[in-house]
Amino acid sequence: MSHNSFGHVFRFTTWGESHGPALGATVDGCPPRIPLSEADIQIWLDRRKPGQNRFTTQRREPDRVEILSGVHEGVTTGTPIQLMIRNEDQRSKDYSDIADKFRPGHADFAYWVKYGVRDPRGGGRSSARETAARVAAGGVARAVLAALVPGLRIRGAMVQMGADRIDRAAWDWEEVERNPFWTPDAGAATRWEGQLDAARKAGSSLGAVIEIRAEGVPPGLGAPIYAKLDQDLAAAMMSINAVKAVEIGAGFDAAALTGETNADEMRMGPEGPEFLANNAGGIVGGISTGQEIVLRFAVKPTSSILSPRATIDRFGAETEIVTKGRHDPCVGIRAVPVGEAMAACVLLDHFLLDRAQTGGERGRIGR
Amino acid sequence: MSHNSFGHVFRFTTWGESHGPALGATVDGCPPRIPLSEADIQIWLDRRKPGQNRFTTQRREPDRVEILSGVHEGVTTGTPIQLMIRNEDQRSKDYSDIADKFRPGHADFAYWVKYGVRDPRGGGRSSARETAARVAAGGVARAVLAALVPGLRIRGAMVQMGADRIDRAAWDWEEVERNPFWTPDAGAATRWEGQLDAARKAGSSLGAVIEIRAEGVPPGLGAPIYAKLDQDLAAAMMSINAVKAVEIGAGFDAAALTGETNADEMRMGPEGPEFLANNAGGIVGGISTGQEIVLRFAVKPTSSILSPRATIDRFGAETEIVTKGRHDPCVGIRAVPVGEAMAACVLLDHFLLDRAQTGGERGRIGR
Amino acid sequence: MSHNSFGHVFRFTTWGESHGPALGATVDGCPPRIPLSEADIQIWLDRRKPGQNRFTTQRREPDRVEILSGVHEGVTTGTPIQLMIRNEDQRSKDYSDIADKFRPGHADFAYWVKYGVRDPRGGGRSSARETAARVAAGGVARAVLAALVPGLRIRGAMVQMGADRIDRAAWDWEEVERNPFWTPDAGAATRWEGQLDAARKAGSSLGAVIEIRAEGVPPGLGAPIYAKLDQDLAAAMMSINAVKAVEIGAGFDAAALTGETNADEMRMGPEGPEFLANNAGGIVGGISTGQEIVLRFAVKPTSSILSPRATIDRFGAETEIVTKGRHDPCVGIRAVPVGEAMAACVLLDHFLLDRAQTGGERGRIGR
Amino acid sequence: MSHNSFGHVFRFTTWGESHGPALGATVDGCPPRIPLSEADIQIWLDRRKPGQNRFTTQRREPDRVEILSGVHEGVTTGTPIQLMIRNEDQRSKDYSDIADKFRPGHADFAYWVKYGVRDPRGGGRSSARETAARVAAGGVARAVLAALVPGLRIRGAMVQMGADRIDRAAWDWEEVERNPFWTPDAGAATRWEGQLDAARKAGSSLGAVIEIRAEGVPPGLGAPIYAKLDQDLAAAMMSINAVKAVEIGAGFDAAALTGETNADEMRMGPEGPEFLANNAGGIVGGISTGQEIVLRFAVKPTSSILSPRATIDRFGAETEIVTKGRHDPCVGIRAVPVGEAMAACVLLDHFLLDRAQTGGERGRIGR
Repeated sequence: MSHNSFGHVFRFTTWGESHGPALGATVDGCPPRIPLSEADIQIWLDRRKPGQNRFTTQRREPDRVEILSGVHEGVTTGTPIQLMIRNEDQRSKDYSDIADKFRPGHADFAYWVKYGVRDPRGGGRSSARETAARVAAGGVARAVLAALVPGLRIRGAMVQMGADRIDRAAWDWEEVERNPFWTPDAGAATRWEGQLDAARKAGSSLGAVIEIRAEGVPPGLGAPIYAKLDQDLAAAMMSINAVKAVEIGAGFDAAALTGETNADEMRMGPEGPEFLANNAGGIVGGISTGQEIVLRFAVKPTSSILSPRATIDRFGAETEIVTKGRHDPCVGIRAVPVGEAMAACVLLDHFLLDRAQTGGERGRIGR
Repeated sequence: MSHNSFGHVFRFTTWGESHGPALGATVDGCPPRIPLSEADIQIWLDRRKPGQNRFTTQRREPDRVEILSGVHEGVTTGTPIQLMIRNEDQRSKDYSDIADKFRPGHADFAYWVKYGVRDPRGGGRSSARETAARVAAGGVARAVLAALVPGLRIRGAMVQMGADRIDRAAWDWEEVERNPFWTPDAGAATRWEGQLDAARKAGSSLGAVIEIRAEGVPPGLGAPIYAKLDQDLAAAMMSINAVKAVEIGAGFDAAALTGETNADEMRMGPEGPEFLANNAGGIVGGISTGQEIVLRFAVKPTSSILSPRATIDRFGAETEIVTKGRHDPCVGIRAVPVGEAMAACVLLDHFLLDRAQTGGERGRIGR
Repeated sequence: MSHNSFGHVFRFTTWGESHGPALGATVDGCPPRIPLSEADIQIWLDRRKPGQNRFTTQRREPDRVEILSGVHEGVTTGTPIQLMIRNEDQRSKDYSDIADKFRPGHADFAYWVKYGVRDPRGGGRSSARETAARVAAGGVARAVLAALVPGLRIRGAMVQMGADRIDRAAWDWEEVERNPFWTPDAGAATRWEGQLDAARKAGSSLGAVIEIRAEGVPPGLGAPIYAKLDQDLAAAMMSINAVKAVEIGAGFDAAALTGETNADEMRMGPEGPEFLANNAGGIVGGISTGQEIVLRFAVKPTSSILSPRATIDRFGAETEIVTKGRHDPCVGIRAVPVGEAMAACVLLDHFLLDRAQTGGERGRIGR
Repeated sequence: MSHNSFGHVFRFTTWGESHGPALGATVDGCPPRIPLSEADIQIWLDRRKPGQNRFTTQRREPDRVEILSGVHEGVTTGTPIQLMIRNEDQRSKDYSDIADKFRPGHADFAYWVKYGVRDPRGGGRSSARETAARVAAGGVARAVLAALVPGLRIRGAMVQMGADRIDRAAWDWEEVERNPFWTPDAGAATRWEGQLDAARKAGSSLGAVIEIRAEGVPPGLGAPIYAKLDQDLAAAMMSINAVKAVEIGAGFDAAALTGETNADEMRMGPEGPEFLANNAGGIVGGISTGQEIVLRFAVKPTSSILSPRATIDRFGAETEIVTKGRHDPCVGIRAVPVGEAMAACVLLDHFLLDRAQTGGERGRIGR
């Protein structure tokens, strides 16, 4: 019900604006006795941190997380964990001339109409800086998952920038850590450097498609009908700034499959049931099957661009706007760790929710 | 939190299985003094009703809704509205031989693993029959919207069957009511008849893409950050059986746009702000802008098919399965009224949620 | 959030009016594989059933529960359990002359002002008949508790009628089943028969205090700070019709204790920690300690009485009202099984909620 | 659902421990454009602040609130308001010797058993310091109520200390501000000074009963059946540390009334309906009637006392404990502003929730 909270049992509430003193996440429902330090969270924030290369905003934010509560002598206590990140590099003057104009593609107009007031400094609450709080909450979720579901691994990758898709045959997870795009295709990384430089210099920006994969997800997570695992994953991804689409498994392509090709057949493997395909993306009927979970989401191109755009101001006058300031030419890049974090929160939440209802017992296959 | 409830303030809980005595929806939070009769709901159920032509299941269900509570002398009282639909044409024998086998593409395996028990008759709770309860709840939402937001209109259409897309230039809303596919393109309807007949005769099935449009949505609906209007719409659609993808506005295509083309520019029109494009699909920053809301979702092909598929049973034996019974060769067809109903519920819910926080006052444009 | 739902993980939604076709509860989040039949629930409904003796309403309602969903082959499936109770003995004519008058002590005025419409037949939604749905939901909770927490026992008793309190030294649980007041004090039962007959004949009514005790509650249930076990128990009891007060353990008397006498001291017993007193009523810091949970709530006297009362009607005219019809002279009597049912729901809900967060592991005492 | 959140639409989440770096409240769902400054909140915190006289803990905490988000240029923006209070006077050494012992009456044992870990410094999360966050959230609620429901006034008073009750005939609201007990009876204040000094010197402590009154509450607030106004008020009060009982209107005394005396009769006054009594405490059927809301709650005596108490430690050894440190001899005193704050939050929450469902329209009395 809460506007700024996400999750059922493992639930976080984010707060803060782009140019206020700080922002953060209040994480509630965390299991007790989980080892947790600021460093455990910082490693994930560092992946999302701005200013790391020429393809992300030049705003210099250390994004250093402080744990203000919920951890005692190195372990979680089961009480709320307050994760605070101070804003340090706030150049509010950059935003002075857009206080009354509505930037196309941004939430300026929508916030103004809804609330009759808005904080124009960096987009205020609608800024992508809010996603730092998600990554921090995701860091807690990852620490808990590491303790409770050891084999679970969540990884993200950029699989398309602009209209240019990766070559899936070239997929190499190690490559993801070696290029500024978190892409598993070295060839794409090379191409994208040129494309994004060109877009940046032209005062333009590019969109992207991100893929999140989760291995080792236990079967049985997800609560039909209205807390389906895919539903909650879709909600999680769609809540990220600039995301306009989300799909699970075969996704939109499933529409073009026949019933025979789409339905993932099953065989018995040495360790139990196996699937011969994964069009389902690891989720059927809203419940995980134990297969790898696969989802993708589309991120629109950054709306803050140097090319002038037609707009109006709050006095009803027509005008033009050029969004200066320091912006990512492709916000999709930093959406990779954000998507991973949201997936971690959803999977932990459903692990706990399933534990509530079923106690974690599984229906047996075999006699 | 509740597993089978949807919505914040206008909230419904569905219950019931495919082959139990009845199923239904408990609708809570409905505004009082709204004229409502069973007929007001039945018109929507009749659109989803099975057995209307050769392209939907031949199960004969009248899907007659009974209002058991919450309405007195023709108006809602503000108390829970129980909408019950009795199951009448239950041929459970059709399902006897699949009680122990897991049908690929169906929730059989996932339910078994999670719960250790399942109702195999028609998929039990995971049956698409559950969507009748959504349509009933949507009927209530529509009645309330008609009273509180008179100009709002929600319509759905099938825009792709299998791999075959409609010609958008041929879009004609009146055509939607004239063919069995709810498609606005008469040419597509003609082609699809042949394609679906062929698939049905081959014991196969086809997927689809559905588009939902909502005109007259007031600006300002949506509660950032985690009750975004697009997030809740995405969750609503992804919760529908067989849906694997959802997108808003330009959706996945937004990834391939540049910042300049994607950001919908604004001008002042005679009646206020106007947008020069609608890549956003009517929602920015999680909040409606007053533009038409446009979303699409993909429905996978029916998993119940006559072609034999490899699977296992619950004793761990490998086997094959042929799903007889009465099934839709393209469940996407009946997903059209379901998507409309879910959109109606989300929009009403957010109208009420916004009214709670802001009182419905809007920020003014102009002096 | 939902207006008519109660609980976190084990959650039920009640629906229905006093004189509609039926009322019921939709129970969500129930663990799977729990043996459950209509008879298991009926035994509890039969305790609350009207018309059993001259001290409860003469309305003849069999209060027969029907399970419409969520149970397959005798066990719960983990999906929503719809419990429906048909209204059979509806004499709506009894209420015809009060359609426009507001009965003092009843919700008539409040409902009218809030909703602008009300169902006057038997109080509509505000009728104590709604508590039948609670007892049905409580029957499900009891069945689950019997399977998951075998030693847990919940019992209720009337400890005061009017101003007359029981002699606690005479407490005998077996006596509770032998008198129409569910009181453990045979002497009180004898006195109360006369008192209540007198009140009934005088067209008056009496209030009561009910005590609920739960033995065998595991320590560690309750989720501080805002899902405290005592908070949720207090909410549960205060939500019952006509309840005006609730207390845990020493309750209001705790205000008059000193710090030394109030704090329950601890010793090690043969089976672990023991408390030397139970002023806390089994709950400290919002969490169960393993001691018996003890709570009490006050039920006001029935507002439906034959003595004329001054009131107004909805046209603003002053008038008098005599509430005929069939009413309990002491609604507190039937509040005993209702309080038990609510306690069962709260305890199960918190058992599951704790299992979600902690996995049910307990901090150890001893090395 | 969230463990540390309270409220439906106006919802706050508290976080922080007694001896961590800070604690606070994240307030979500606040209406926009409400004037709000730190000073507006500080005035309420100053009433709860420790160390103000010899009857409250000598811990020196300025309890200075910082608004970290959600307010821009002096008005609320509709986004989450983070209220942070730094802990400044933390003498953790005071608590070193109780790290392994369970203090009777405190949450030490319950937290240990539930979580297997606890922060012993000042009670950690179970400390009454958490109530500072409630008062801060209440300050926001008061500011909103002042803007949206101008005539509403919430006041609290201590009406009993130990076994000694005030003389209600001597009630004088102005006296409340003149004595350290927030009591309206000057005579009681005089007596209580001596009684509390005696208790403090004897290493003991006293309990109390607090009464909260709210005038000017609009009729129609409260959402039956499971978000009843009295239910939510009861939950709010019972969630406060050390509270063991709560009652509305006549409360427990209602049990001893007859139907005739209990039901508040109605007449038409010059400005509309009037009640001839207020046994209901302003709430009937879970909905406000427009009468003054009256509730009381009991606070147990402080469990931190100098008198040695028998207990055990976590190794299972029997021991004694003396709780030194700086403690309130009667925590009930500071519960007065806390109870007021919780009432403010509940009333605002229900004002907004009612606005969602009904739009604030009221059923009319008269033609």
